[in-house]
Parts: sequence; structure tokens; C-alpha cells
Amino acid sequence: MPKLKEIAALIGGEVRGDGSLEITGIQAMAAAGPSDIAFIARGKENPDISCLRAGALIVAEGSPLAYPAVVCVPDPQLAFARLLEYFHPRRPFCSGVSASAAISETAELAVNIRIGPFSYVGENSRIGANSEIHAHVTIYRDVQIGSDCLIYSNVVIRENVEIGNRVIIHSGAVIGADGFGFGRAADGTAVKIPQKGKVIIGDGCEIGANTCIDRSTIEETVLAENVKLDNLVQIGHNVHIGKNTAISAQTGISGSTRIGAQVIMGGQVGIADHVQIADGVMIAAKSGVTGSVKTKMIIAGIPHQELASWRKNMVLARNLAEWKEKLHLMEKRIKQLEEK
Amino acid sequence: MPKLKEIAALIGGEVRGDGSLEITGIQAMAAAGPSDIAFIARGKENPDISCLRAGALIVAEGSPLAYPAVVCVPDPQLAFARLLEYFHPRRPFCSGVSASAAISETAELAVNIRIGPFSYVGENSRIGANSEIHAHVTIYRDVQIGSDCLIYSNVVIRENVEIGNRVIIHSGAVIGADGFGFGRAADGTAVKIPQKGKVIIGDGCEIGANTCIDRSTIEETVLAENVKLDNLVQIGHNVHIGKNTAISAQTGISGSTRIGAQVIMGGQVGIADHVQIADGVMIAAKSGVTGSVKTKMIIAGIPHQELASWRKNMVLARNLAEWKEKLHLMEKRIKQLEEK
Amino acid sequence: MPKLKEIAALIGGEVRGDGSLEITGIQAMAAAGPSDIAFIARGKENPDISCLRAGALIVAEGSPLAYPAVVCVPDPQLAFARLLEYFHPRRPFCSGVSASAAISETAELAVNIRIGPFSYVGENSRIGANSEIHAHVTIYRDVQIGSDCLIYSNVVIRENVEIGNRVIIHSGAVIGADGFGFGRAADGTAVKIPQKGKVIIGDGCEIGANTCIDRSTIEETVLAENVKLDNLVQIGHNVHIGKNTAISAQTGISGSTRIGAQVIMGGQVGIADHVQIADGVMIAAKSGVTGSVKTKMIIAGIPHQELASWRKNMVLARNLAEWKEKLHLMEKRIKQLEEK
Repeated sequence: MPKLKEIAALIGGEVRGDGSLEITGIQAMAAAGPSDIAFIARGKENPDISCLRAGALIVAEGSPLAYPAVVCVPDPQLAFARLLEYFHPRRPFCSGVSASAAISETAELAVNIRIGPFSYVGENSRIGANSEIHAHVTIYRDVQIGSDCLIYSNVVIRENVEIGNRVIIHSGAVIGADGFGFGRAADGTAVKIPQKGKVIIGDGCEIGANTCIDRSTIEETVLAENVKLDNLVQIGHNVHIGKNTAISAQTGISGSTRIGAQVIMGGQVGIADHVQIADGVMIAAKSGVTGSVKTKMIIAGIPHQELASWRKNMVLARNLAEWKEKLHLMEKRIKQLEEK
Repeated sequence: MPKLKEIAALIGGEVRGDGSLEITGIQAMAAAGPSDIAFIARGKENPDISCLRAGALIVAEGSPLAYPAVVCVPDPQLAFARLLEYFHPRRPFCSGVSASAAISETAELAVNIRIGPFSYVGENSRIGANSEIHAHVTIYRDVQIGSDCLIYSNVVIRENVEIGNRVIIHSGAVIGADGFGFGRAADGTAVKIPQKGKVIIGDGCEIGANTCIDRSTIEETVLAENVKLDNLVQIGHNVHIGKNTAISAQTGISGSTRIGAQVIMGGQVGIADHVQIADGVMIAAKSGVTGSVKTKMIIAGIPHQELASWRKNMVLARNLAEWKEKLHLMEKRIKQLEEK
Repeated sequence: MPKLKEIAALIGGEVRGDGSLEITGIQAMAAAGPSDIAFIARGKENPDISCLRAGALIVAEGSPLAYPAVVCVPDPQLAFARLLEYFHPRRPFCSGVSASAAISETAELAVNIRIGPFSYVGENSRIGANSEIHAHVTIYRDVQIGSDCLIYSNVVIRENVEIGNRVIIHSGAVIGADGFGFGRAADGTAVKIPQKGKVIIGDGCEIGANTCIDRSTIEETVLAENVKLDNLVQIGHNVHIGKNTAISAQTGISGSTRIGAQVIMGGQVGIADHVQIADGVMIAAKSGVTGSVKTKMIIAGIPHQELASWRKNMVLARNLAEWKEKLHLMEKRIKQLEEK
């Protein structure tokens, strides 16, 4: 069982208190017992510690806390993340390639690959070293998947999709389905525009459960490195998303839109097609972005505006009844003045 | 073929009319023929019966209707539900465990379990008596599923999830995917916070198609008994939902939010993270709930307000052009007064 | 390698320029090289051609463009669609019925059917000629699928669903899951209303990835011919959708609503239950439609109003702070007048 000082070494922190304390697990503050370590987020350094039973706490450098024992680190949340993995290491789904998986003869599997039961890998598809494909995954033909990827059960990856290294794709995600592209025949009938483009997913991306990323007619749909998509997100065809951008659940990006790097979106946001969102823009949940946002700012509302304006307008919009009353009164007073 | 009086006995009702009438099926009002029974919802007791061809009607106690024949019951809708099951009993998906299912040696299956083709049950997972698992279901390791459950095709249940008795999970639902939790490294890169917590689903819950319920870093995501989720719903990590709460399609609940019991939400609602919704609150479709709702009330809007206020404000907000006109006129009149 | 004049013949167009030019592919304007053909959409006839490297362009009849070589056609987008399929023909997923597919003995497969690995076809289900079912598809019992259909991996089609000819269903779509129907017992507990109705999908429909179309208690959920649904769409039980209607991603239609023909909806629209939308209505993204729309018009907003009014009101609503200021000033002036 690791001692507190060993835990501290692991996360590059400094012990204040008894470093010989044995730590058997990591827990949330409320659930932590005498041999657990818990963490206190930066900015929340004054928790009620009267009921605390944890053996030790991870705190930010500079925190005044000295609770029976603490470990001071530059970023408590990242230290917590590291210890979560330490105490709960991910177990591989299976060993090697399951006998019931169907692997095309022309597929290329690098070393140390795991493929779960009933998964399918199509012609000419290649999977990089150490990647793990769980059960019921369908990988169409001519797909490239990098090394150290983790593909959960029921993911579908359509033909010609390129996936980088260290990519995580959660269950039910569909990568490379046809974009929603139709022309109209003379009689109004919708005519399908074939969708033959690629989807390219950069290194370190993570894609949520049941999220869809569409392929384009002929151009590419691109996620740069380290893009994080939550569940049930819709990425339209020919969208480009810059690196480190994070998009919350149920948000939808319409076709051919360009999203910058380090953008953060709340849930249920909708963004129109063919618009541009600058690097670093933050978009509040449920916003409807109808045009380009050319500089870094925080936006909200349908249609979107700067968050500060939106807030002001929202407060005012909730008091319209009061205003109406006031307007009436003013009109009366004007009338009285006019009659004099 | 059952007689009307037998049907009445089945649903605890009283016949008014010819109890010897043979009933061969149950139908919607418009489609019912002479040997069908149909139902009339409480509060809709004055339908146009001139075109009605149904053999008999189920009506609420106290209804004045005496249409050739009626069966009076306390709740016509529940009686209708019971007869639907009577005339259209659900057939089991398959008998026993399919030869093509992959069941881990350490999995425990109770008696009378059905598992469809290509389903997978991981190590140490346990499935209770009479439960039915359809085709292409992936059950990871250390999962507990109670008795009398019904899991449709293509459901994914991740490791350590606990599911009660009489739970129904529709196709494509993903239970226990990683919550959307990231820290930021010094250079702005998103760093994954491991998600190692449990998801716990209470007895009698029903979970819609392609709905996602995420696992948390270390705490539990919990649905109490009898929670009903529609399709494409997103339940964030560490959310708790109280019993009998019903949530309509495409609604999303952000992380660590607490929803009370008997709450009803329309579709496409979004609820912020870390807020509390009291028992019995009703939330209109498309609402954006940005803070806690501490007492039972009906809310609507983005951001949410009481439904009555929202309605009033919405009406006013649609007449802003008129107001502007009025404001202009008033200003003019003031100017004229000032000039005198 | 086809010559430009042959390409022109294929799309019923007329060459202006060198018809003997060899064309090896089709590309987007920016990416097209000297042996590629690209297209210019109607209404965008004045592109910057100074950097253009394409061998030839498809342009609309009447376009003044004569760029080294052009092919004039009535509808450039449809010509483009046809050439996309010509240069990138879809390859069949597999040949015949995979050895690992599980086909019920009572299922009927017409000629020239392809079924991928691990797909399941239940009792009494019938699949029409030339249809292609990819991997991991679950087709329950008593399903009818027409001819020339294309069903991508991980689709689930529940019992008694009827699908026409030339239907495309993308990965993860769930057709025929139970509608969200509950009664309430005396103690407030939700009681499931069985969902025993059919889903009927007309000829030429296309259904997006992870989209859900629910079955009803006893009536039918119907998509007429040529309805196009994008990804992550929710179609409630007993909804009818008219022909040629197109619905963008993440939109939800509540139960028993009737949508006309040639309706177009943006993304993330929500429509209330039991309402009617007339033929040809257009609904802007993120609208919340709370009641029937009886004539052809363009609507937007929550609750919906005519687009023109919505736009006007939105502009006004963004200037409420200014108005408040003005109101204050006016009040002051009135007071001053009164004091005189």
C-alpha cells in the first residue's frame, strides 16, 4: 500500500503532515474515509472540513490548508486525474484478437492490438500499435486508425476515414456517415448529392457516445488535434474544428462551418452553415449562432450576441409587463398635460 | 374469442349494454370495427360518435355515454394499456441463450434468461431471472442486471453499471460511457479526467433509444425507481434523478445536477450543471434551466422563469414593433408640449 | 479516360471549349487540378477564377463563363451529383450473404441481396431484391424491406416495420422503438402504455445516423415517399410526414403531429404534439413550434412566428437597454412638464 509521500512523489507534490500515512484509494470529499485521499479544487480552498473523514487532501500550492495531512501541487485537478488512473487502472477489454472478430484478409493490424468479439475490420483498413477495439465495432474498408486508440463497442467507422493516434471514440458514435446533401429536381423531389469525401480525426481527440461526424460530398471534414466532443453531438459535412476545442452534448455544427482552436461550447448549441468562429470563442449553452464570430469573445442567445448584452437584455425582457404598465402611465400623464 | 363481459372483468370495469358481444381486438377510435373495442380518454367524453364503427367503448366511470355498449372503468387509459398487452402480447425475442452469443465464463446467468445472437456478456457480470437480452448487446465486465429486464438490440452497458429489476432499455442506448470531464494543462491542452464512477439504474426505469447516461469521475450517476427517459436524452455524469420523473426526447442534464421526484420535462430541455430541481417541477419543452428551482412550479424559457410570466413576456415580446411606434409618438407629444 | 465531351453527354450538357480534354476526376473548386472537373452553383456565377487550376467547369445554362472549357447544364448541382457517382461508384459492402449473418429460417430474401457479417434477420421478415444490409444490423421479426435498399451497420429495425424501396438508413438509426407513452396510476407512478403500432417508411426515404422513429400504441407512424431525415432526429409515435419533406439534424417531432409535404426544417427544431404543419412550410433552425401552422409560410422563434416578424422583434429585443434609457428620459421630461 502506497504511503502519502509516495503518492506525493507520483503527482509531483509536497507533503504537509504525516508522509507515512497509508493511502488505499481516492474518493470524493464526502465519501472519503481515513485511508483515502480527496482533492480540493483551486478556488474552493475553504471547504467545511468539520465532517471530513479523508486521510489526506490534495490542495493547490499556496493553499493555507494543513488538514491532518495535505499534498500541495500546482494543479489539484490534474493530480486527481493522475491518481484516479493509478488507483483504478483501465483493464484491457480482451487479449489479442477475438476468435469471433471478422478481419478482412487485406486489413493490416500492427503489434499489440486487441479486438473484441464480433468486431469487423474491412478491406485495406489499417490499425496502429496498441490500439484497442471493443465488441461490435464496424470498421469499413480503407480506414486508417493510429496507435494507442480506444474504440468502444458499437462504434461505426465508415470507409476512407482517417483517425490519428491516442483517439478515444465512445460507444454508438458514427464517423463518416453521409452528409445531409440534396439538390432539388424540377418537380421538387430531393435528389441525393453523393457524399464521397473523407473524415480526418487528429491525434488525441475524444468523441462522445452516439455522436455523429459526417463526410462531405468531396471535401474533408476535419477535427484537429485534441478536439473533445461530448455525447450526441452532430458535426455536419465539411466542418473543420481547430485544436483543443471542446464541444458539449447535443450541440450541432452545420455544414462547411469553420471552428477555431480553443473554442468552448456549452450543450445544445447550434451553429449555422458556412460561418467562422474565431479561436478562443466561448459559446453559452443553447445559443443559436447565425453568423461568423470574428474575434475572441463570449456569446449567448438566439441569435447570438455578446454574453454581457444578452444577460442585460434577458433581465429587461423578463420585465416587459412592468414596462407596459409604465408606458401606459406615461401616456396618461402626457394626455393630462396636453389637455391643460 | 372473449366476450365483452370477460373483457370488462379483465379491466375491473362494468358493462353498460350487451355483455355477450364478441371482441376480437383493440383499436383507435377511427380504425375500430364492429368487433373491436376502443377507448375514450377522461376529459374527452363528447366525441363525435356518428361515424363510430367500434363494437364497444371503454369510458370513465360517470361518463354519460351509453353507445351501443360501453365498459366503465376508473381510468380508461390504463384499461386500454392492459387490453393492448392482452390482445398483442409481447413475444420473446428468442428461446434461451443463442449459440452465437459470447458469454464470459465468469458471468452468472439466473434462470429463464434469453440472450439473442451476437450478444456479449463480460467477466463477472450477472443477469437476473427472466431477463431478456436481444441481439448485438454489449455488456461489459462487472455489470449487474436485475430480473425481468428487457434490453433491446445494440444497447451498450459499460463496466460496473448496476441495473435494477423490470428495467427496459431501448436500442442504441449507452449506459456508463465516460462523463465529459477535462482539466487544462498549462499550455491549454485538455487533459482527460478519468471517469471511474458507477451508474445505478433503479427498478422499473425505462430508457429510450440512443439515450446516453454517463459515468462520473468517482461518484455515482443515479436514476431512482421508475424514471422514464425518452430517446436521445443526455444524462451527464454524477446526475441524480428522483423517482417517477419523466424526461422527453433530446433533453440534456449537465453534470452533478439533482433532479427531484415526479418531475416532468418536455423535449429539448437543457439544464445547467450543479443545480437542483425540486420534486414535482414541470419544465416546458426547449427551456434552458440556468439555476436551481427550489419549489414545485411550472417553468419555461431561456433562461427559465415561471410559465405564466414567460407566456406574458412572450406575448409582449412579439409586439415590440408596436411599442416602438408608441414610444416614438409619445416622444413627439412630449416635444410638442415642451415647445409650448 | 473519359473526354470532356463524353462527360458532357453523360450529364446532358453542352461543351464550350476543347471537348477532347481528358477528365480523370471531379473535385471542389479549390482542390481541382488540370484533369479534374469542378462545378459552379447556380447563382454563384462570378467566382474568382484567377487561381483556378481545374481542367473544366460545370456551369448553368446561360452562364457567361467560358473558362478554358465549360459544360453548360440546366442544373450544375445535379450534374455534379451524377459525376460524383460516376467517378466514385459505391462499392458493395460484401458479396452475397455473409457466413456469419444469422438469418431466421422463415425469413425471405429476394435475389441479389447482400448481408454483412453478424447481421440478424428475424422470423418472417422479408427483404426485397438488390437490397444491401451491412454488418451488425438487427432486423426483428415480421419486418418488410423493399428492393434496392441500403442499410448501414448498426441499424436496428424493430418488429412489424414496413420499409419501401430505395430507402437508405444510416448507421445507428433505430426504427420502431416504443413511443414514449405513459399513464399515471393513482399513486403517481408512471404506467407504460404498450406500443404495438407500426412504422411505415415510404419509397426513396433517407434516414440519418442515430435518428429514432418511434412506433405508436396502436396507430401508425408514417414517412411518405422521399422524406429525408438528417442525423439524431427524433420522430415521435403516430407522427405522419408528407412526401419530399426534409428535416435537419437534432430536430424533434412530438407524438401525433402531422407534417405536410415539401416542408423544410432547420436543425434543432422542436414541434409540439398533435399539431399540423401545412405543405411547404419552412421552419428556421432552433424554432419551437407550439401550435399548428395552417398555411405555407416561413417561421422562426420560440414560440414560432413568421420569420419577418421574428427578425424585427429580435433586432428590437437586442436594444432593450437603449429603450429603457429612453423611457427614463421621457419620464423625466414629463415630470418637468408637470412641475411647470
